[in-house]
Amino acid sequence: MVYPQTFEGYAVTDSATWNKVEKIEFTPKAFGPKDIDIKISACGVCGSDVHNVRGGWHKPHLPVVPGHEIIGTVVRIGDDATTNLKVGQRVGVGAQVWSCLKCETCLEENETYCPDWVDTYNDFYPDGSKAWGGYASHIRVHEHFVFPIPDVLDSNDVAPMLCAGITVYSPLVRNNAGPGKKVGIIGIGGLGHFAIMFAKALGAEVFTFSRTNSKKEDALKLGSDHYIATYEDKDWSTKYARKLDLIVSCGNSSKNFDLDGYLKCLRVHGKLVSVGLPEEPFTVSPGTFIKNGSLLGSSHLGSRQEMLDMLKLAAEKGIKSWHEDLKVDEEGISEALTRCYENDVRYRFVLTDYEKSFK
Amino acid sequence: MVYPQTFEGYAVTDSATWNKVEKIEFTPKAFGPKDIDIKISACGVCGSDVHNVRGGWHKPHLPVVPGHEIIGTVVRIGDDATTNLKVGQRVGVGAQVWSCLKCETCLEENETYCPDWVDTYNDFYPDGSKAWGGYASHIRVHEHFVFPIPDVLDSNDVAPMLCAGITVYSPLVRNNAGPGKKVGIIGIGGLGHFAIMFAKALGAEVFTFSRTNSKKEDALKLGSDHYIATYEDKDWSTKYARKLDLIVSCGNSSKNFDLDGYLKCLRVHGKLVSVGLPEEPFTVSPGTFIKNGSLLGSSHLGSRQEMLDMLKLAAEKGIKSWHEDLKVDEEGISEALTRCYENDVRYRFVLTDYEKSFK
Repeated sequence: MVYPQTFEGYAVTDSATWNKVEKIEFTPKAFGPKDIDIKISACGVCGSDVHNVRGGWHKPHLPVVPGHEIIGTVVRIGDDATTNLKVGQRVGVGAQVWSCLKCETCLEENETYCPDWVDTYNDFYPDGSKAWGGYASHIRVHEHFVFPIPDVLDSNDVAPMLCAGITVYSPLVRNNAGPGKKVGIIGIGGLGHFAIMFAKALGAEVFTFSRTNSKKEDALKLGSDHYIATYEDKDWSTKYARKLDLIVSCGNSSKNFDLDGYLKCLRVHGKLVSVGLPEEPFTVSPGTFIKNGSLLGSSHLGSRQEMLDMLKLAAEKGIKSWHEDLKVDEEGISEALTRCYENDVRYRFVLTDYEKSFK
Repeated sequence: MVYPQTFEGYAVTDSATWNKVEKIEFTPKAFGPKDIDIKISACGVCGSDVHNVRGGWHKPHLPVVPGHEIIGTVVRIGDDATTNLKVGQRVGVGAQVWSCLKCETCLEENETYCPDWVDTYNDFYPDGSKAWGGYASHIRVHEHFVFPIPDVLDSNDVAPMLCAGITVYSPLVRNNAGPGKKVGIIGIGGLGHFAIMFAKALGAEVFTFSRTNSKKEDALKLGSDHYIATYEDKDWSTKYARKLDLIVSCGNSSKNFDLDGYLKCLRVHGKLVSVGLPEEPFTVSPGTFIKNGSLLGSSHLGSRQEMLDMLKLAAEKGIKSWHEDLKVDEEGISEALTRCYENDVRYRFVLTDYEKSFK
C-alpha cells in the first residue's frame, strides 16, 4: 500500500543502535475532519530526536520515526478545517500535533501545556493511535498545529525554527524580552543560535554565555552584543551580577553547569528559563534564590499565535537558521543523529531530498 | 557601662550548646545620623534563630545575640532622621537593619535584595561593626528599617509579624494573591500560619497542605478554605493538578518533600516560592517544570512600604500571631530555642518581661 493508506518513514527500531534507521511502512492515525495531510519536503534534526531514540528521558515506543521540524505541502484537508489552508500550500509542523483545545489551559492559548498534549512522534493520541514524525513521506496533523510558511523564507532555513525557534521565542516574548531589556543566552547550539537571533530581533541587549571562546565569532555574527566565555573569565558571575532581566538556558548538560552563578546574574525576581533539558537533574537550595528572589523554570514550545508571530518576525527580519543539509536516507540520518549526539553541528541538520527517498 | 555606651543581651556562645544563652554586655555600632535607638519590650523567636546558632546555613559569628522580631520604644533619634519618629513611640524592627539605599536595587524598593544588606544579627555592617539582635536590652537601627506599630495591635501579637509575617506577605502581594486567585500554602508553623491569614485577608482562596491532619482544625480556624493532608490523601497532586495560581512553601525540610507533586498543582507559569529554607537542597530537573511552565524560587522579607502595608492590613483585619509567651531570661530562651527546634510550638514564641531582665 501507499499514501493515503500508509506512509513511509525512516525508523529507529532499537535504542542500542539509535543512530541506525531503516525504512518502514506505517499506518497513520485515522483521518479526522480537521486533519491536514502534508507531503514532507524537509525536516530539521533536533537534539531531542537523539534523546528520544536513545531513551535518555524515558524508554522509546519503538519503532520510532523521529522528526518534528517539518516543512511540506498540503495534500489533503479535512472537511471541517477552518484555517483556510489550500492544497499545494507550503506549511510547517513543529513538535506538537494535538491538544484537546477545550480545557482551560488550551482556551487561554496555552495549548502547548494541555495536560493531554501529543508529541509529534514517540507518543500516542488519546484513541491509542501512534504519532509518527517527519523523517517520513507524509504527516497527518490537526490543522491547529499546521502553520503557513511565509513565501520569503526558504524551507531549509525555516524548518529548524518549528521546534528550536519557537522553544526560545516563546519564553523570550512571554518574559518581555525587548528594547531596554538585557537577556542572557546560555549555550550556542540549535536552540541557542535562534535565541540570540530572536532576542536581538525583539530589541533586547544580548549576553551570550558559553564555556570557551570557540563560538565567539558565531555568537557575534548571530547578533549577540556581548560574549562571555565562562571557562576563561573566572569572575564572570561577579562581573555580570544583577545585570540580566532574563536568562534563557539552552544548555544540554547539568554537569559543571554553574546554576548559582547564572542566578546571581539576574536582577531581582529575574527568571532563568531552561529550555535545554539535561538528562541529569540540578541540585538547588531555596537559599540559592533568596539573594535576588530569582526563579528557575522551563517552557514548552509556544502557542499557535506565537508560532505565527515568530514566522512573521523571521520573514521581516530575514532570520534564518544556520544549517547543514543531509539527504533523508539511511546514511544521511545516521550521520545527522551521530554528529548531533557529538555536538558536531553548527547549528542544525536539515534532512532534504525527500523526492528521491520517497517516490 | 550601660546604655547608651553598651547594651546587654542573651548570647549563644557555642554552636554545640546552641540552646544555652548567657547574659553579655556588648558595644553596638557607632550611632549614625539616621539611626534610632530602641528599648526593647518583646521579641519573637524565629526558626532562623535556631538555624543561625546551630550553624545550619553557615558557621555563626559567635557570640550571637539572636532575635529579629523586635518591638520596643524609641529612646534616641539621629539628627538627620526623616521618618517622623518620636521618642517614646512604639516601633518594630524585622530581620534586616541596613541596606545601602543608593543602588538600583534599593531605589526600586527592593532594599531587602540589596547586595550589601545587613541581617539584624549574626552579620556585620560595611564598617566591620557587628549586628546584635533582639534578645537584648536595646537595638540601634537605621530609621528605614524601623516601623511604627499601629495602636490597635498588641506588641506580643505583632512581634512575629516583623519577620514571619513579612516573609510571606511580600511574595503573596508581589504575585497578586487576591480575589479570584487560588493560593497554596505548604506547612503550618510560624511562617505558614501568617501565610494562611494574609492570603485570606488579601481575598484569595486558600489551600493549605500539611503532611497529616493534626493541624487541620487550626488551619481552618486561621482561615484556610481547604486542607489537604498529603500523607492521608495519596492522590492529592492529581486532584489539585493545575488548580493553584501560586504556592508559598513554608516547609523547613526538603526530605520527603514532593516538589514535583506541588509543581503539578500550579497553573501554567505558576510559581512555587519557597520561603522555608531547608538546610538540604532540592533535586530538580528542567523537565520537572516543563509540563506547565512552572517556576521555583524564593523571596527575602519585604520592602519598607510592604511592611507598612502589612501592618495596616493586620490592624484593619485584626490579624494576630498565635503565640506562646516566655520570659526573656536563660530559662525562657533555652525553652524557646529547644522547642522551636523540635517544632513544638503553635506557632511562635514571643519573649517578654524585658523590664525584669534588663533593669
